[in-house]
Amino acid sequence: MLTSDFRSRTPSNKDSHSCPDLLRKHSEQKIKARQSLESVDYDLHESQQYVDYVTNLSGPLGKVKGGFRWFYTVLAGFAAGGVAVAIQFVLKHVTEQRFEHQQRMYDDGHGLLLRFGAWLIGSMVLAAIAGFLVCYIEPLAAGSGIPEIKCILNGIDLPNVLLLRTLACKAFGIVCSVAAGLPCGKEGPMIHSGAICGAQMTRVHAGPIVQPYKINHEARDFVAAGAAAGVAAAFGSPIGGVLFAVEEGATHMNPRILVRTFVCAAVAALTVRFFAGPMEGMVKWGMLGTEVPVEFGRFDNRPYQIWELFIFGIFGILGGLAGALFNSLNTKLSKWRMRWIGPRGHMRYLEVLFVTGTIVTFNFMAPLFFGAVSSEMSSYSSSQKLFINLGGECIRSLFHDTENFDQRMLLFFAIVHYAQTVWTYGLGVPSGLFVPSLLGGAAFGRSIGQVVNSLDANFASPGVYALIGATAMLSGMARITISLAVILMETTGEAEWGLPIFLTVMAAKWTGDLFNKGIYDIHIDLRHVPLLEGRAEKPMLMLQAGEIMATTVKSAPVIAVVKDLLSMLEDCKHNGFPVVDATTNTFVGLVERNTLLHVIALSKEDNFGRGGRAVPYEDMVRHGHPQFPSITDVKAAVGVNNLNKEIDLGPYTNQGCYTVQGHAAAMRCYALFRTMGLRHLPVLAADHTLRGIITRKDLLNAMESLEGHHLRDLARNDSSEISARNVILGIPGSNLLKKSNTSLEEDASSAATP
Amino acid sequence: MLTSDFRSRTPSNKDSHSCPDLLRKHSEQKIKARQSLESVDYDLHESQQYVDYVTNLSGPLGKVKGGFRWFYTVLAGFAAGGVAVAIQFVLKHVTEQRFEHQQRMYDDGHGLLLRFGAWLIGSMVLAAIAGFLVCYIEPLAAGSGIPEIKCILNGIDLPNVLLLRTLACKAFGIVCSVAAGLPCGKEGPMIHSGAICGAQMTRVHAGPIVQPYKINHEARDFVAAGAAAGVAAAFGSPIGGVLFAVEEGATHMNPRILVRTFVCAAVAALTVRFFAGPMEGMVKWGMLGTEVPVEFGRFDNRPYQIWELFIFGIFGILGGLAGALFNSLNTKLSKWRMRWIGPRGHMRYLEVLFVTGTIVTFNFMAPLFFGAVSSEMSSYSSSQKLFINLGGECIRSLFHDTENFDQRMLLFFAIVHYAQTVWTYGLGVPSGLFVPSLLGGAAFGRSIGQVVNSLDANFASPGVYALIGATAMLSGMARITISLAVILMETTGEAEWGLPIFLTVMAAKWTGDLFNKGIYDIHIDLRHVPLLEGRAEKPMLMLQAGEIMATTVKSAPVIAVVKDLLSMLEDCKHNGFPVVDATTNTFVGLVERNTLLHVIALSKEDNFGRGGRAVPYEDMVRHGHPQFPSITDVKAAVGVNNLNKEIDLGPYTNQGCYTVQGHAAAMRCYALFRTMGLRHLPVLAADHTLRGIITRKDLLNAMESLEGHHLRDLARNDSSEISARNVILGIPGSNLLKKSNTSLEEDASSAATP
Repeated sequence: MLTSDFRSRTPSNKDSHSCPDLLRKHSEQKIKARQSLESVDYDLHESQQYVDYVTNLSGPLGKVKGGFRWFYTVLAGFAAGGVAVAIQFVLKHVTEQRFEHQQRMYDDGHGLLLRFGAWLIGSMVLAAIAGFLVCYIEPLAAGSGIPEIKCILNGIDLPNVLLLRTLACKAFGIVCSVAAGLPCGKEGPMIHSGAICGAQMTRVHAGPIVQPYKINHEARDFVAAGAAAGVAAAFGSPIGGVLFAVEEGATHMNPRILVRTFVCAAVAALTVRFFAGPMEGMVKWGMLGTEVPVEFGRFDNRPYQIWELFIFGIFGILGGLAGALFNSLNTKLSKWRMRWIGPRGHMRYLEVLFVTGTIVTFNFMAPLFFGAVSSEMSSYSSSQKLFINLGGECIRSLFHDTENFDQRMLLFFAIVHYAQTVWTYGLGVPSGLFVPSLLGGAAFGRSIGQVVNSLDANFASPGVYALIGATAMLSGMARITISLAVILMETTGEAEWGLPIFLTVMAAKWTGDLFNKGIYDIHIDLRHVPLLEGRAEKPMLMLQAGEIMATTVKSAPVIAVVKDLLSMLEDCKHNGFPVVDATTNTFVGLVERNTLLHVIALSKEDNFGRGGRAVPYEDMVRHGHPQFPSITDVKAAVGVNNLNKEIDLGPYTNQGCYTVQGHAAAMRCYALFRTMGLRHLPVLAADHTLRGIITRKDLLNAMESLEGHHLRDLARNDSSEISARNVILGIPGSNLLKKSNTSLEEDASSAATP
Repeated sequence: MLTSDFRSRTPSNKDSHSCPDLLRKHSEQKIKARQSLESVDYDLHESQQYVDYVTNLSGPLGKVKGGFRWFYTVLAGFAAGGVAVAIQFVLKHVTEQRFEHQQRMYDDGHGLLLRFGAWLIGSMVLAAIAGFLVCYIEPLAAGSGIPEIKCILNGIDLPNVLLLRTLACKAFGIVCSVAAGLPCGKEGPMIHSGAICGAQMTRVHAGPIVQPYKINHEARDFVAAGAAAGVAAAFGSPIGGVLFAVEEGATHMNPRILVRTFVCAAVAALTVRFFAGPMEGMVKWGMLGTEVPVEFGRFDNRPYQIWELFIFGIFGILGGLAGALFNSLNTKLSKWRMRWIGPRGHMRYLEVLFVTGTIVTFNFMAPLFFGAVSSEMSSYSSSQKLFINLGGECIRSLFHDTENFDQRMLLFFAIVHYAQTVWTYGLGVPSGLFVPSLLGGAAFGRSIGQVVNSLDANFASPGVYALIGATAMLSGMARITISLAVILMETTGEAEWGLPIFLTVMAAKWTGDLFNKGIYDIHIDLRHVPLLEGRAEKPMLMLQAGEIMATTVKSAPVIAVVKDLLSMLEDCKHNGFPVVDATTNTFVGLVERNTLLHVIALSKEDNFGRGGRAVPYEDMVRHGHPQFPSITDVKAAVGVNNLNKEIDLGPYTNQGCYTVQGHAAAMRCYALFRTMGLRHLPVLAADHTLRGIITRKDLLNAMESLEGHHLRDLARNDSSEISARNVILGIPGSNLLKKSNTSLEEDASSAATP
């Protein structure tokens, strides 16, 4: 009865007039991918059992618990900062060694070919390590990690993303891939690392005081704080970090969580700043303040004229176009990779080696193309060094060098770097996008700035144009707005630059949005992750809950027999079961699969029966909640003798859970889901019986079915698809598209990998 | 039947063992004040009538409408910036005139007494104007306006706060009260002005394209954007402005609104910056960038050592203590004022004149107390000038002067200024708190910095300590955290200072919160405004919806007879009426009073009867929606012949509105109210009939009844107050405190005034 055929309301049914087979194949892939993903319930846990637990915890113990929360927040900040400092330190050291080795070889009189060989071998060894970590150990260490964090904050359970193993692979891997000379940024992986540091705080086993953090929404808040700390550590930008968490992920911010996030980010930034000055040899240990270097160098004393804001706007538009093209090319490439290479294994590993070999060879030779004086690396001009230096150093030099770069070399580099970044993002190594796209944009911007400046030296400081170009390019790709403006403001040290940066960012975002989504959202979509965007589209106001819900739902009675529960759990992979009153058939509440399994396993003599004492929540936590025990273990634990006993599900049921009427707008359901972090939303009839249930996948399917349809057509002409809104009471009889299955959500059996 | 006795669930019933009369009196005042306030419904408007309207508006017209939204956003930004520039310009001019006049008198050889007389008369005339505007024209122009804006964003309808008249009174008044020499800041009123500019955009009468902005939540978004623009204009701090809107008001931020808010704030900041440089004579017209002066001067090249962060933390704690004392003293004074002086009229006016006379006299004489060389104002030392210069200039001098201030004078000023600020806030003139409290804190901080610096010149830059002191004091009073840190960061021009500022802010906030609330919240409480704070307290998890709801509710059948509706509307002042099915008695949805009045007035032949055509939403807007027509007008419009006709309320009813079960946790209701911006929340029984309704006042009453009770006591010992959570289905029989009335919310008959 419970088959795995997922609700088949996909665009293929209606929209595939042109190439139905291809589309059907695509939607089958999507259905499969979505089935493998679980969402997370961030809603208020409101069973009697849990309320009793909270009651016991209040008082002095509750205070201690609250204090520990701050302790762990600060700890997460230190950890995120520490990881960033370590990455930075090792990277600096390895790179220096490589350059020194080249210098020694040059001094010893070795020829260019020999030196190239040594350089290439070094790069290949580093890339081999980075690739190995991703292709054979943890595929989720690939890329920047920002899409994954965004999904988790949105309420989707991506397994393995927040493991320590992933952190280790990511941190080691990013050092290797950057040091190898690939166009990768260390910042995205630092953000991912920060989020892992935050998440790990909820997994500390330190007795009952810490266990409450195992609740989903607590864990989510720690992940958000950790991600903010990651940004703060990567860029020395605490405020930008918090805003990044707000803008990119957090659907759930309230002022209290905001403050905690900020504390975490501030600690991380402080940690990094404490080490940054002395590591660069610029200030003594313990000195802070304006002497500490900022990531991309201070932008003091650069005036601009008001009409130059128009030029910045044009930069923004160009950046938006370049970003949209980047996203489109990278999408095609990523699809090709998904089809022919896969998320792990030999093919992916070989690709890493091939790409690294090609790019490193090219970049080693490129500085010698245009009128090179010498092949001694240390004698290279600034424009030649763009090809071999670390991205951050190149950006600093583009922002602040007073001497002009060689114009031909600059433009050549900008184009080459753009192409290389397209090729690299999505490769089987850890790789951030921030620095590569900033660098490409800065090179373009500076080359324009130099041309304008050569016409009239009174305006167009090339460094400013490099900054604006960098902003435009990154914003055009990633479509991040406020947090990007603040991050760049903090990394250039001057609050005054926030305004022109923001104008550029908005121009780039609006231009880019005309063509496609941001690169992170594209990669989320490529994996078919059911992400709920900020707001439902207006047509969702026209759809009703009753039209988008799944109608056949497996429910449990309030007083349930153990063996029935077990067979239900065995047959059905759902994660939430509506509980109904057996006599009146009315809806009572929702109970989680997880809870049922633990309760059955733990029930003793006095827990059974009508009005039996509830199994305490603490016992469940001690038993391993929120991990799932296997059905076999549960069966063994409950014993054959108890199979016919009754369990009163009342105390375990979330009786207050949100419900909607069948005629409620789908837009309302969407807002409730997204804002309150729901996992299941029961739909009730006018007689308070259960009519169906909505999950995020239903909402997304409804959104997709509306895409491309004109609102008016939908409401007026296509009455078979959308029934006219029913102003009479009750649930409309015809659903948007027929649903044939009973599954709510499937167990996560495999990780979502790119 | 419908009396004005408000639900009497107040602490007086149970908590008033000691002084029952006093408490009863207090709660009667509170009940009266709350009755006079209405809340606003920001929830999704989901009647068939409205959905049809939106459907018609989509397509090209919808696009135009969307474009206009951005146009108005930019316009609001310009307006907020323009108001700020105008205030700044006039203030600068008036102050210069006053100083020049003093100088002329001195040059002409007039004696001190004569010069004092001229100075005092100038101040008294200015104060008389400011006081007149508040005491006789618009009482809401008093104070900073931030509490009022906070209430409106929270969903409370304070009449008159957003009128153009209020803007005019506030803008003229603040120039006068600052120029008079009172310790007032112009920044708070600029924020209020910005919010009014935003709100006015929703009142432009420009045909049907603009009308949709009259929807509540659209208006709220514009107010939030306007307030952010006000901050941006006041401090030249666009990012701080957006964060201020998020932190202080907006319960509803999603990324899309956030971006719009940011655009508005950026435009305002740009406007101000464009004028600021040339007005100060520092840069040429059209020049922007780092040459433009920031509000409190740039904080370049100031290092500090890591252990100084501990000193900053101690500053924060001291600031928290000073702020808490300030709040406590000002609360006492404000209560005294409410009791003896009132919000307007002669008494209030006389107080303004008296306070101004005293403060101006004292401040004129004070510079001469300690070893004054000359009574020529222009020859005063920096420390003497603190008493007579504008607040912003004093802050700049405390932050940046390299020569030490006279230590005695500095401390004397700090104490005097603190006392004067306590005395002034709440006076019948427009007066912001930002600059006065920053100034007091800066003076304290600098005096400590000078002492420490004199011990060891290697550290403790007095300017830095002034900055940290200013931060601590303001944060200790206002308990603003992130936005304050960012504002100060932007006004001092260096992103690097965000971190120590933030640490100070947090220390001050946590210390202050041990004693009382922030000053804005205190003033909101003093007016008994039913503000919903960020999060419900944990004990709210123990209470159930059925225990806090109002049980006797006036409802309407789906098919209603006109005369019955009219008599219901006449008898009952509620603003939302549940609609129930007449046969099954089950709940259908909510209809607004406002809608009912317009529909009755506009119904024609084919609108009446079962299944009659719905009155179009456009017609209602044209008829004056969302203003209330009077019952008399409605009666006249509908005519005697139609009184016995039926109206089908189905199309006008919000059928999708959120509902909860009686056993849902009060905490859940609170979250729903606060996040979704609700006004009414119907509570349903297991048979889907209506059991009661919750408004924000019920939530607040429940919170208050829990205050001071220990959670455990509540749950275990005091079973008469809180029934044990009912795990069986249905609604608990005993309510927390008996409710006797039927009123949901009363009409706003008078403005909430301090």
